[in-house]
Amino acid sequence: MKKADFPVANVRHFFEPGPVMLISSALANERDIMTLGWHTVLEFSPSLIGCMISVGNHSHRLIKESRECVINLPTSGLLDTVVAIGNCSGEEIDKFAEFSLTPQPASNVSAPMIAECHASFECRLFEDALVDSLNFFVFEVVKAHVAPSPKKPETVHYCGDGEFMLSGKHVSRRSLFRPEML
Amino acid sequence: MKKADFPVANVRHFFEPGPVMLISSALANERDIMTLGWHTVLEFSPSLIGCMISVGNHSHRLIKESRECVINLPTSGLLDTVVAIGNCSGEEIDKFAEFSLTPQPASNVSAPMIAECHASFECRLFEDALVDSLNFFVFEVVKAHVAPSPKKPETVHYCGDGEFMLSGKHVSRRSLFRPEML
Repeated sequence: MKKADFPVANVRHFFEPGPVMLISSALANERDIMTLGWHTVLEFSPSLIGCMISVGNHSHRLIKESRECVINLPTSGLLDTVVAIGNCSGEEIDKFAEFSLTPQPASNVSAPMIAECHASFECRLFEDALVDSLNFFVFEVVKAHVAPSPKKPETVHYCGDGEFMLSGKHVSRRSLFRPEML
Repeated sequence: MKKADFPVANVRHFFEPGPVMLISSALANERDIMTLGWHTVLEFSPSLIGCMISVGNHSHRLIKESRECVINLPTSGLLDTVVAIGNCSGEEIDKFAEFSLTPQPASNVSAPMIAECHASFECRLFEDALVDSLNFFVFEVVKAHVAPSPKKPETVHYCGDGEFMLSGKHVSRRSLFRPEML
């Protein structure tokens, strides 16, 4: 999927609705992908995202030691791949090869982007105060790559118990906002 | 809306898809409501939720000092109320009165629940290490109240720029999960 530069201060547009993301990471000659449902926007500028990455994930060590990752936004066409990625371990397999995903070099981090995703956000570890106690990483998005179309990709949102919600219709309430709230 | 007890370890079902929430809080004779789009699940048990509550919100002080709040889940029928709540300040008005919302006593915290919401999660501050630097509060959900129906309420997800995504169809991939991942 061909992507274009996107302003990092606006990445809330993709994170805030709550979709499942795919985190890609690399360390020395290892690489991995994991699913991420536990994330939140924390700030516009610097562009900060908080993520809970359980220590039980193979990716945890790669991200903690490299202090970098790419957060990729998959759309609904990748749902079965997303589920498969979340149900196996990078200790045993190379998930790029296993699921025929294409690693693309990022600009600012050594972790690869996933070419098949709608968007890829290059991240550097910004704050690690809650990493040891809560597995909570705060990343700064240092570069964002977004496919120009579709404008409103169908995203997948995990509900637990093996069930997903797909993003539905978009409605605007822009006319009800105070200008400074937009 | 009549609600029933719900297991606190399962609240990810409501938080993880990413809906806009309404936080209610109280301190002495003040009370307030604010919209919350920046939140994440952090742990099943204890049941932990992380929230970015900007210091610019009137609720910030009430929550920081009382160390309690209720996080309420509004459904799409409340969308215009959600927008209105997010576009005014509790410094000037009592939002319960202004928007005809009904405060209900909670069981374990002094903050009121919002009767018109589908679910209400009573929270106590669990970890404040990132409150001063990033306005990031980690709460423990100590009691959860959820309306028995509808089973899949239509939720609202903020995209920025005054635009919302409504939750769409639900699809199950349960058969593709390893049992320990459910």
